[in-house]
Order: sequence, then structure tokens, then C-alpha cells
Amino acid sequence: MALDTYRREIAKITADIIRLIGEREKLAKKIALEKRKEGKTVFDYEAEEKIISLALELGRRLGVSDETVLKIVCTLINDSKKVQESVLGSVGISNEKITPISVATAAMELQRSGKEVYRLDVGEPDFNVPAKVMKACCDAIRQGRTHYTDPRGMPELITALASYVKSRYGYDAKHNQFVITPGGRFAVYASLASILKEGDSAIVIEPAWPMYKEALDYIGCRCITVGTRFEDRWEPSVEDIRKKIKEHTRAIILSYPNNPTGKIINRKKFKEIVELANSKNLTILSDEIYNDYSYIDCPSILDYSADNFILTSSFSKTWAMTGFRVGYALSSTAVAQKILRINSLMITSIPEFVQIAAIAALDCTEVIRSNSQMIKERLEVACHQLAKTDSLEFTKPDGGMYIFPRIKGELVDTSKFALKLMNEKSVCVTPGIAFGAYPEHFRISLGQSKEVITEGIKRIGEILN
Amino acid sequence: MALDTYRREIAKITADIIRLIGEREKLAKKIALEKRKEGKTVFDYEAEEKIISLALELGRRLGVSDETVLKIVCTLINDSKKVQESVLGSVGISNEKITPISVATAAMELQRSGKEVYRLDVGEPDFNVPAKVMKACCDAIRQGRTHYTDPRGMPELITALASYVKSRYGYDAKHNQFVITPGGRFAVYASLASILKEGDSAIVIEPAWPMYKEALDYIGCRCITVGTRFEDRWEPSVEDIRKKIKEHTRAIILSYPNNPTGKIINRKKFKEIVELANSKNLTILSDEIYNDYSYIDCPSILDYSADNFILTSSFSKTWAMTGFRVGYALSSTAVAQKILRINSLMITSIPEFVQIAAIAALDCTEVIRSNSQMIKERLEVACHQLAKTDSLEFTKPDGGMYIFPRIKGELVDTSKFALKLMNEKSVCVTPGIAFGAYPEHFRISLGQSKEVITEGIKRIGEILN
Repeated sequence: MALDTYRREIAKITADIIRLIGEREKLAKKIALEKRKEGKTVFDYEAEEKIISLALELGRRLGVSDETVLKIVCTLINDSKKVQESVLGSVGISNEKITPISVATAAMELQRSGKEVYRLDVGEPDFNVPAKVMKACCDAIRQGRTHYTDPRGMPELITALASYVKSRYGYDAKHNQFVITPGGRFAVYASLASILKEGDSAIVIEPAWPMYKEALDYIGCRCITVGTRFEDRWEPSVEDIRKKIKEHTRAIILSYPNNPTGKIINRKKFKEIVELANSKNLTILSDEIYNDYSYIDCPSILDYSADNFILTSSFSKTWAMTGFRVGYALSSTAVAQKILRINSLMITSIPEFVQIAAIAALDCTEVIRSNSQMIKERLEVACHQLAKTDSLEFTKPDGGMYIFPRIKGELVDTSKFALKLMNEKSVCVTPGIAFGAYPEHFRISLGQSKEVITEGIKRIGEILN
Repeated sequence: MALDTYRREIAKITADIIRLIGEREKLAKKIALEKRKEGKTVFDYEAEEKIISLALELGRRLGVSDETVLKIVCTLINDSKKVQESVLGSVGISNEKITPISVATAAMELQRSGKEVYRLDVGEPDFNVPAKVMKACCDAIRQGRTHYTDPRGMPELITALASYVKSRYGYDAKHNQFVITPGGRFAVYASLASILKEGDSAIVIEPAWPMYKEALDYIGCRCITVGTRFEDRWEPSVEDIRKKIKEHTRAIILSYPNNPTGKIINRKKFKEIVELANSKNLTILSDEIYNDYSYIDCPSILDYSADNFILTSSFSKTWAMTGFRVGYALSSTAVAQKILRINSLMITSIPEFVQIAAIAALDCTEVIRSNSQMIKERLEVACHQLAKTDSLEFTKPDGGMYIFPRIKGELVDTSKFALKLMNEKSVCVTPGIAFGAYPEHFRISLGQSKEVITEGIKRIGEILN
């Protein structure tokens, strides 16, 4: 019968494909041996991109969908990498082990052992949560507001958020453009997972919060990095971004004020990036979690007409509500629908009483100003102290809650430095490689009091002498 | 230079693979046309499994890793499915649109419009959260316990949980076997994502909570279902399970008391399944969220020596803490490490004060008994009322908080029935197809008061007459 014949043919073709993969692996091994001879260890991303482009082109001619081609080719590329790694050892800088969270975990262990630790690593402000927020949360708990809610978020919270967004940015957002998430982190993950498929790529401007790359890796997407330099005051080049955009690139991730540098790009640059994204049909994911900690004019994605955008933010920094775990994504309704599906699948909703606390926070506009002022004062104190430390250099942040100094002179690996600093001086900072190829930098957080920051930086100076 | 030659060859092989996919798609189209001629619309899963097995075997002979083969073959199969669907239309029963959450969302909208709604759909008990838990949570908020915690969970909570597990099951769990998650839902997702790779499969015994299949779909894994029948009192057959295990099957998901049937399997059967899993090197994921609502002896995975296991549970049902969103996974330390990585990536940690509330809950052992007793009483009342409803038949649950009756006589699609019931009688139930191929069943939850349950079932009877 015809069906069986076709099925046999399909099985045969499948076997041919597997055989070709076997051949491909043999070549990958030969390439690895050749590289070893030549002393090369790094992958040639341009070569990979070329293969992807050719495969996409061929696929289109044959009527095979981009999605299938990308998935197949990326599987093949990853397979080759594993084969090559088995010859060459692990390739490239792996920063899997050093992240702000892993540093924080080590620091917490140190604290639990009874030691006083100067936590210049921790990315959370030590401010008190507004009294109104605490009261609203406790009242809600006592009133039994302890149930599942709409997976998108409580309608009352979304209404409050929409009017906050309106008054803050003059942007009219519809209810179904929002999704309330357990923190900004989940908002970023769910956003990326909603707009990217396996094999797609997204552009990240480094140094950057490591979460972007981790999330892209997790989704099976390629993280294309565009570096910025201390010497250029962390200014990204639109031309650099343009050059990195390939056919399968779907998004540009922006985050200003930047974590860890505190850089804010100006409106002209922001607009150019939006126009570039529009012209290439890319989505801009703008992570605006530090937006309220800006000391110069800070553009928002909502100020521009991006054809495709997602704004992610959270209550963690502005209202010091890290431990409430409440964030949100704001996008087109179509993308919001996808984010909502991930929220529904993985978490149902965030706690009802936490959402009620968030409503109260939106009402505390005076807290936004005073917290922002406090971070600014700490920034001044930290910069003052850093300026006295001869062995360090830094650019003064435009905003955010971090400084990203570097150690002068011959290359010091700040991973080892940070470990030494923690063990000998009880000061925790986050090594630069957590944020990209910046081994000579480290991140100082302004989350702690002026006294802690000053003493911490003093000790850094001591250990550097 | 040799490197360039090899790269060109690699590019050529990649192109050959894409060409073969083009050929494969042509055959898939022919198969679809043939199927249309023969009036077939359903996929032949056995045929798919055969292709996967052959490919794995060939791959091993050629030294290509199982992981690569599975990923490639599953991509090819999904590609064929899409091609066939473009000819045949959507294939198979899609239950994407009806889930307990989607019903709940519709019901909430109805309630917001001011209507009184009998929520027999909602999977959360209406009990009060223990006063001690509320107090602990509010005290923690006021004390500023509003910060990030260790992504695994607060050490104090894990210590308390370990001693609860010890006293409840006699099982000695180490600290690093636990991960605290935002609800049982996230525990299940992160567990599956930790033990399964794309292309792997897991066995789900249906009817089942739809989340398992949704999570497997999301991860790119095949959900192999083993059906159980009303006529067999929902008893699963170990032989049926054994037959469905293929080379790439990595896990069996168990959940007793079952949602939606309330079935509990006996110790002999549980042991047989564990032994089967051990012999095939599978992981058992045992979702024990309803374990405290058992009216006959209910085995736990911790009672057996499963070589590979994950227990997931949550504070939602036992302590009526749905809206706190706190659950956990308990597994080997190696798997826990992977779950922890997902927790860290996506959520950092759950709220600190929620974890403190969970510690207080573990201390409320009397609440476990009284809540369980209340559910049992509701079960009796519901069964009594259902028995009076001629047009329905049901098996009395052994535990859990649901009943899964079916409408007698000629096949009624309970999706339409549920909609009619909601619109005409303001009673919400969850249609059977949310839980598998059970269109004639629907789920009644025991989360509401006896009065609501009785009135709701009365109205169901009225509409059926």
C-alpha cells in the first residue's frame, strides 16, 4: 500500500540524514585537530553565521520553513561544537560559575558563619519597604486575599499600573498589554521565550546583566554580543549593532541605566537603535528596571515608536521590594498573550497579597523620589572614595545602582581578586566576567549604606596596595 | 588551507541535509494526501517511534550522540506533522483552549460582572489560612524580611521541611535535595526540564492534570499517555505502561490521589511501577500535592527505593495556601542542582516572608487533620447529591479534592455542556477533555462549601433533565 511505501522512503531519508551527520562529525573532528595544530581554540562565529545563512537560503528555495532549518542547523552546529570540545577541551570563556547570584550565595554562607560581610555585591537596595506597602500587604493577608488570581495579574493592579505608565511616560497601555510576573527576571525570561525560537539570535550590548545570556542559552538561542568599552565611556556603536544583525536575529536587548556600568544612552542614540530595529523587523526588549535611578535624562522605549517592543520592569529597585518578587512585562497584545501563556503554565499567578502590595506601591510616588535621591547620594560618596583609590579607574555612572571600576596596570583577573577580597577583607563584589569579557573590572553595588560602601571601598584599596 | 577545505565540506554536507529535508517534506505531503484518501486523520505514533528507534540505533553505530539524533529526528517529525497539517487541517484533539485555568479565568470574568457563580471548577480549598501562618507572614513583612534569599530556599525553611518529611515519611532528606519553588506548578516544570531533553518522552497516566502535558510540550518532549478507564475504576495497568516505554523514555509521572479522579493506587501497584522504572532506568516524578487528602492508605514515592525520583508538592492544598505560591521539589542532589539552576535563572527566589509563612505552616499539624476532615465531609455530601442525579455516574474518590463524574447515555461533549452550565446556571465545572480523552466526563472540585457544592450539583441535575 502506498502509505507504507512512502513511510519506508521517509525512514530511508531519515537514515541518510543521520549518516550525513556522522560524516559531518568526522569533519568536525578534523577541524578540531587542525585548530589544535594552529593553536586556535576559539570558534569562528562568522563561519557559523555563513552556514546558517546558506542553509536558510537553500531551505527557502526548497520550501522548507526557516524554523525547521534553523533548528536543524543549530543542532548540527552544537553537535560539531561538542565534537570539537572533546578534542580541544572546553572552548571559550565559560562564566557559568560566576554570576551575581553565585557570589551572593557564597557571601550569604559567609554571613551565616557569623562573619560581618560588606555586601557590595548585592543588587538590592537596603531601603525600608514603604510603610503603606507593608500595611496593604498585611491587611490583605488578614482579609484572606490569599488565593489564585487571574494569571495575567489582578485587574486592579493592571489598572493601577496602566495609569502609572500613563502619568510617567504619557503612554496609553491597554489592559491586555500587561502581564504581572514573579520579578523582573521572570518577565525577561518569558519575554525572550515568547519572541524567540530555538536557533534565533538576539543582540546583547555588553557589559550586561548575565541573565540575558543565560536566558538565551536556556531557550536555545544565540546571544550575539556587541561590546562597549570603558575608553568610550560605554557608548554603544549603532554601526556595530547593525553589523551583527543576521537573518535569524529577532531582538535587541537594551537596558539603561545599564547594569553594571550605569551608562545611559542619549535620545538620539536610542532613536537610532529603534529605527534600526524597525528597519530590520526586530523586537526591542527594553529592561527598564533602573529607570527611576537616573541622574541624567533617561529615555524609555515608550517614548519611541518601536514597531515591536517589550518593556520589562519590576517593583524591586524603585520601591526596594526585591523580596516581594513582583515585576511585569508591557508589550503588544499579541506578545503579551504569549508571555501570559508562559506565566499560566509555570506559576499560575503571583501571590494575591503581593499584588495588593504592588498597588499600594504605585501610590507611593514620594518614595520613588526619596529612594532615587538616596542612591544618588551613595553614588557621590562611592565616587569620592573611589577617586582616592589610585589603583582603580572608573566612569561616573549616569544612573542605576552600580559602579564598574577597573583595576589599573597589568591585567588582574577580578574573579581571583574578588575571592581574595571576600576571604581576607570580608568585602563582596561581583567580578567583571559575570557581565561579559571584562576580567579587569568588578561591580560595586550601591544597595548598602554610605558607611558600608565607604568602608568596603577603603578595604578594596588596602588589598590593592 | 586545510581548515577552509573542511569547512567547505561541512557546508556541503549541511546543504545535503537540507535537501534531504526538502525530499522528506515532499513525501510527508504524499502521505497526507494518501491519508486524506483513506479518511485517516490521526498520526501513527508507533510509526514515529519506529523511526526514532532506527535512527538511534544507526546513530550509535556511527558514534552520533543520542541527544543529537533525538533532536534532529524530533525536529523532522514535527516538520512532517506541520506539512501534513497544512494538507489535512489540524490533527488530533487539541485541548489547548480548555484547561482548569482557562475555565477559572472565564468564571472570574463572570464574577466580576457581578454575578454569583458556583465555582465547582476551582482547584483551591476555600479554607482560611491558619492564623499562625498569617501572623508569621505579617510579622516577617514588618520586620523587613523582604529580601532575596538563597535561590534554593531559606535554610531555615529547608530544615523545617526536612524534619516534616522525616516525621511524615521516615525519610532522611539532605538539605541539598530540596528546592523551594513558586508553587507546585513551577516545581513540576523545573523538575521535568531538569531530567528531560528535547525529543525525550515521559509517560503520563490519564486522566491527568493538564499541566504535565503542557510542560512536556513546552520543553519539546513527547508526552506518552497511558489511559485508564472509568470501567476499571481508574486502575492503571503496569503492562500498559511497560509497553509504552521506548528507548528515549526517561520518566513516568505519577500523581495520587489523582486529579481529577481521586484514585489512589495500592502499595503493590506502586511498587511494581517503581520496579519497572528502576529496571528501565527511568525517573519517577511523583506529584504528591493531594497526599494529605487521602481517605485510604496512600503510598508516597519516599516509601520505595526508586533509583531516580522527584517528589513535588506544595503548601497550596494542605494548608490552603494557594495564593502564597510556595511549593518544593525533593530529589537526588544531582537533579536538585539542575532544578536549582532553573529557579535561579527564572525567579531568583520566592518572597522571603512567604518562606517564613511556610515554616509556620509546617508547625500547624492540627490544621492538616482538620482540613483533610473537611474535604472528606464535602466529598460525602457531594457523592450523596451526585447519587441522586440519575443522569450521572461516578466512582467515589479514594482521596484528593475532586470528583470526575460522567454523563450517562449517548456521548455528550462536556465542553459545550460546561459552557451552557456556566451561562444558564452560573455553575462552573471543568470539562473532561482538559484531562485527556474524556469528553463525557467533567470535574467537580471540593474546594467550596458543602452548600455551594450541593446547590451546584443540584443545578447540574436540573440542566441535564
